[in-house]
Amino acid sequence: MSEVCSALVMGVGPERGLGAALARHFAAQGLHVFIAGRSANKLRLVAENIRQSGGKISAVVADATVEADIDRLFAAIREQALPLNIAVYNVDSNSCAPLLETGSDMFTRLWQQNCLGGFLFGKQAAAIMQAQRCGTLIFTGATASMRARPPFTAFAAAKAGLRALAQGMAREFGPHGVHVVHTVIDGVIDGDRARNQFSSYVSAKGDDGLLKLEAIAETYWALHRQHPSAWTHELDLRPFKEPF
Amino acid sequence: MSEVCSALVMGVGPERGLGAALARHFAAQGLHVFIAGRSANKLRLVAENIRQSGGKISAVVADATVEADIDRLFAAIREQALPLNIAVYNVDSNSCAPLLETGSDMFTRLWQQNCLGGFLFGKQAAAIMQAQRCGTLIFTGATASMRARPPFTAFAAAKAGLRALAQGMAREFGPHGVHVVHTVIDGVIDGDRARNQFSSYVSAKGDDGLLKLEAIAETYWALHRQHPSAWTHELDLRPFKEPF
Amino acid sequence: MSEVCSALVMGVGPERGLGAALARHFAAQGLHVFIAGRSANKLRLVAENIRQSGGKISAVVADATVEADIDRLFAAIREQALPLNIAVYNVDSNSCAPLLETGSDMFTRLWQQNCLGGFLFGKQAAAIMQAQRCGTLIFTGATASMRARPPFTAFAAAKAGLRALAQGMAREFGPHGVHVVHTVIDGVIDGDRARNQFSSYVSAKGDDGLLKLEAIAETYWALHRQHPSAWTHELDLRPFKEPF
Amino acid sequence: MSEVCSALVMGVGPERGLGAALARHFAAQGLHVFIAGRSANKLRLVAENIRQSGGKISAVVADATVEADIDRLFAAIREQALPLNIAVYNVDSNSCAPLLETGSDMFTRLWQQNCLGGFLFGKQAAAIMQAQRCGTLIFTGATASMRARPPFTAFAAAKAGLRALAQGMAREFGPHGVHVVHTVIDGVIDGDRARNQFSSYVSAKGDDGLLKLEAIAETYWALHRQHPSAWTHELDLRPFKEPF
Repeated sequence: MSEVCSALVMGVGPERGLGAALARHFAAQGLHVFIAGRSANKLRLVAENIRQSGGKISAVVADATVEADIDRLFAAIREQALPLNIAVYNVDSNSCAPLLETGSDMFTRLWQQNCLGGFLFGKQAAAIMQAQRCGTLIFTGATASMRARPPFTAFAAAKAGLRALAQGMAREFGPHGVHVVHTVIDGVIDGDRARNQFSSYVSAKGDDGLLKLEAIAETYWALHRQHPSAWTHELDLRPFKEPF
Repeated sequence: MSEVCSALVMGVGPERGLGAALARHFAAQGLHVFIAGRSANKLRLVAENIRQSGGKISAVVADATVEADIDRLFAAIREQALPLNIAVYNVDSNSCAPLLETGSDMFTRLWQQNCLGGFLFGKQAAAIMQAQRCGTLIFTGATASMRARPPFTAFAAAKAGLRALAQGMAREFGPHGVHVVHTVIDGVIDGDRARNQFSSYVSAKGDDGLLKLEAIAETYWALHRQHPSAWTHELDLRPFKEPF
Repeated sequence: MSEVCSALVMGVGPERGLGAALARHFAAQGLHVFIAGRSANKLRLVAENIRQSGGKISAVVADATVEADIDRLFAAIREQALPLNIAVYNVDSNSCAPLLETGSDMFTRLWQQNCLGGFLFGKQAAAIMQAQRCGTLIFTGATASMRARPPFTAFAAAKAGLRALAQGMAREFGPHGVHVVHTVIDGVIDGDRARNQFSSYVSAKGDDGLLKLEAIAETYWALHRQHPSAWTHELDLRPFKEPF
Repeated sequence: MSEVCSALVMGVGPERGLGAALARHFAAQGLHVFIAGRSANKLRLVAENIRQSGGKISAVVADATVEADIDRLFAAIREQALPLNIAVYNVDSNSCAPLLETGSDMFTRLWQQNCLGGFLFGKQAAAIMQAQRCGTLIFTGATASMRARPPFTAFAAAKAGLRALAQGMAREFGPHGVHVVHTVIDGVIDGDRARNQFSSYVSAKGDDGLLKLEAIAETYWALHRQHPSAWTHELDLRPFKEPF
C-alpha cells in the first residue's frame, strides 16, 4: 500500500468508541486518517494518541447533519490532495420511547443523524471515489434497519433509511469501482457508551458478549481489502452468544 | 356495521387517484369519510361526488408533513365524536435522480412526505384506536421500501423508513387491538398521475397492466374486515403481468 | 360465479382443521370442491358434512409426497371436466428436535411433506390453470420459511423451500393468468391438532389468541377474488396478540 | 496458529474450482486439509498439487448426499485426531428448467445436493466443533436462496433450504462457540465450470466480472479469523460490476 492513501471516519467520539478504533486501525495500516465529529475535545484526544503511535491524522470538527459542515470537511480532504481509500459513516445515535411518547423532534433528529447525515457524507465520498474509480464506503448500520421493534421504532425507521441508501448507492456506484458496504451491528459495542450507560448489562453479558472495537475494525479492514471480483455489500456482526 | 363508523384517508388528490378511490369505497360501505390533502379544490371535487352518491364526507385541507395541520385534522375528527375505524396514510410522493444530483432538499422532502408524515398521522390515529381498542391503520408503501434501486435511492430510503415505522407500530399496537398494515404497491397505479405523466408506459402495459384503483380499495377493505385472530401486517399488490 | 367452478384442497384431515374449513368455505361459495388427504375416514367425515349442507364435494385419498397419488388425484379432477379455480396446498407437518438429534429420515420427511409435495401438486395445478389462463394457487406456509429457529431448523429448511417454490412459480405463471400465493401463518391454528396437543398453550393464549379456521378461509377467499391488476403474492396471518 | 489445526472442504472438483481453491488457501495457512468429493481423479490432482507446494492433505472420495459416505468421511477425520477448525460445505449443483418441465427427480436431486448434503455434513461438523467449543462452519450459498426466479425455481427451493439450515444452526451452535456462516454467491465463479460451459458469458463480463476463486477464499479465511465477539453469519459476494 503506497504512502499516499487516506481514510476518513465520520462519527469519532470517545477513545473507547468505534470511530476512534477504526481511526487507530487505519492509521496503523499506514493511511493518513481524517477524523470528524462534533466534539473538538474528543477528536483532539483521539488524534493525539494516534500521532503518538506514529500515525498521520487530521481532525475536523463537523456535525454530520449540517450540510455546511460536511462541505467543509470534504473541502479539507480535497485540500490534502490524497486519494480517499476508505470512508466510514459511523454516526450512531440511538434513543427509544413508546411511540405515543415519541415527539416529532426525536423522530426527526434520529433520522438526521442516522440517515440524512449518511446521505450528505456518502454523496461527497462517492463523488471523490467515483472520480478515482476506486474506494470503499462503509455505513455502520444496525439490526433495527431490518426489523423494527418497539420502543425502538423511530430508530429503526432511521436505520432502515440508511440501509436503503447504502443499497441504492452500492447498485449505482459499484460498477464505477466504488465498494459500498452496509454493516449490520447486532448487539452492543464494547465501548465507553455501553460501559457507562448499561454497566449491569455489560457484566451480565460476560466475556466476548459485547462487540469488541478492534474486532469490528478488523472486519472493516478486511472488507476494504476485498478484491473487486468478490465484494460484500452487507454483513452482520454479532457476539457469538447474542441471540438473534 | 353500525352507522356511527368513520374512515380517514390522508393523501387525497385527483378524482382518479388512490386516495379518492379509497374514500369512495369506504363511503359506499356506509362509513362517514374524512378526507385530507393539500389541495382544497381537489378535495372539494372528491367530496362533492361522494356526497352526490349519498356518501357522508368531511374534507380537511392539510399537509401531512406539517404537524400543526395533522393536529388540526385530528381535532376535526375528534369533534365529530365518531369512532375511527379505518385510517389510511396514502401520501406518496416520488421523484428520482442520480445520487450525485440529488439535493439534500429533495432527500429531505421525500422523507417528510413518505415517512415523517406517516409518523405524525399514524401516532394520532393509533392514539385514538388504542383508546377504542380497535381500528385499522394502513400505510400505503412501495416495493422500494424493500429494495433500493437507483435512480430511486432517496425515495427508497424514505419508503424503507415508512415500512419500519409500520412494522414497529404493528408490534406495539396490535396487542391493543389496532391492526396496522403496510401495503407494498409494486407497479404503477392506474390513476391520473400515471395517465398524464407516463402515457406511453401505460399503453405499453396493456389491459390490467396497472393497478386498478378499485382493486386496491377492495383489498384495503378486506384487510379492514379481517378477524383479529388472523391479521395481515404486510402484503404486496401488483398487476399479474408485472415482473418482480 | 357460474356453477361450473371447482376448488381443490390438498391436506384435509380432521373436521376442525384448516383443510376442512377451506373446503367448507369454498363449497359454501358454490364451488364443487375436491378434497384430498391420507385418511379415508377423515375425508369421508368432512365430505359428508359438506354434502349435508348442500355442498358438492369429491374426496380422493392421496399422499401429497407420492407422485403416483398426485397423478391419480389430478386425473380424477380432469375427469370431472370442471374449470379448476382454486387449488390450495395445505399439507403441514411439523416436528422439532435439536439438530444433533435430527435424523436424516426426519429431515427428509419434513421436506417431502412441506416442499416436495407442494412441487408435485403445484406443477399439476399450474398446468391446468395455465391452460385455462386463470386460477388461484395458494401454498399455506409458515413464519419458519423466513426465519429458522432451533429446534425447528429442519422444519424451517422445508418451509423455506416451499416459499421459494411459490415465489418462482408466481414469477413464472403470473403473466399467464395464474395467481400464485404464499401465506405465512404466524401463530397456532385453532384446530383439533392444537387443542389436542397443546391444550395448556391454547388456554394461555386466550380469546382470539389462535388463528380461527374461518378467519383464515375468508382471507384465502379474498385472495382468490382479487382483481388481476392487483394481486398479492405473499401475506402474513397472525393473531392480533401474537408477538412477532 | 498451532500446527495441529485442520480444515475440511466438501465439494472439491476441478483444480480451477472453488473447492480446490479453498483447500489450497487453507493448506497455505498451514492447516492439514481434508478434501472430499465424488471424483477420485479430481481429488488426486488437487491433492498432488497441494502436496507439491508443501501442504498437508488427505482426500476422501465421498458423495455428500449419501449418509454412509459422510459417516465414512468424518470417521477418517476423527482418526487423524486433529482439531477441526474450518469445515466448508461447498457442494453446488445447479440446473434449470421451466417448472412444467422439471421432473421430481431433478427437484429431488437438487435438494439432495444443495440442502440434504449440507445437513448431513453440517451435523457431523457441528458435533465435533461443539465438543471442541470452537470451529468455523461455512455453507456456500447463492442468491437464489433469497430470491427464486424461473427457470431456477427448483434450484432456489434447494438453496433456500440450505440457507434456513445454516441460520438455524448458527442460532443453535453459536453460543457453543461454533461460528456458522452462510455465504451468498451472487454471480458466476471464475472456474472451469463457467469457462467450459458459458465461455461467451465469461468473455462478455470482462475483467473481474466473475468471482475470482482466490478472492472468495480470502473472504472465507477472514470469516474464520473473526473474533468471537464480532461474528458474521451471512454475507454476499459479487463482482463489482454485477447488477443486483
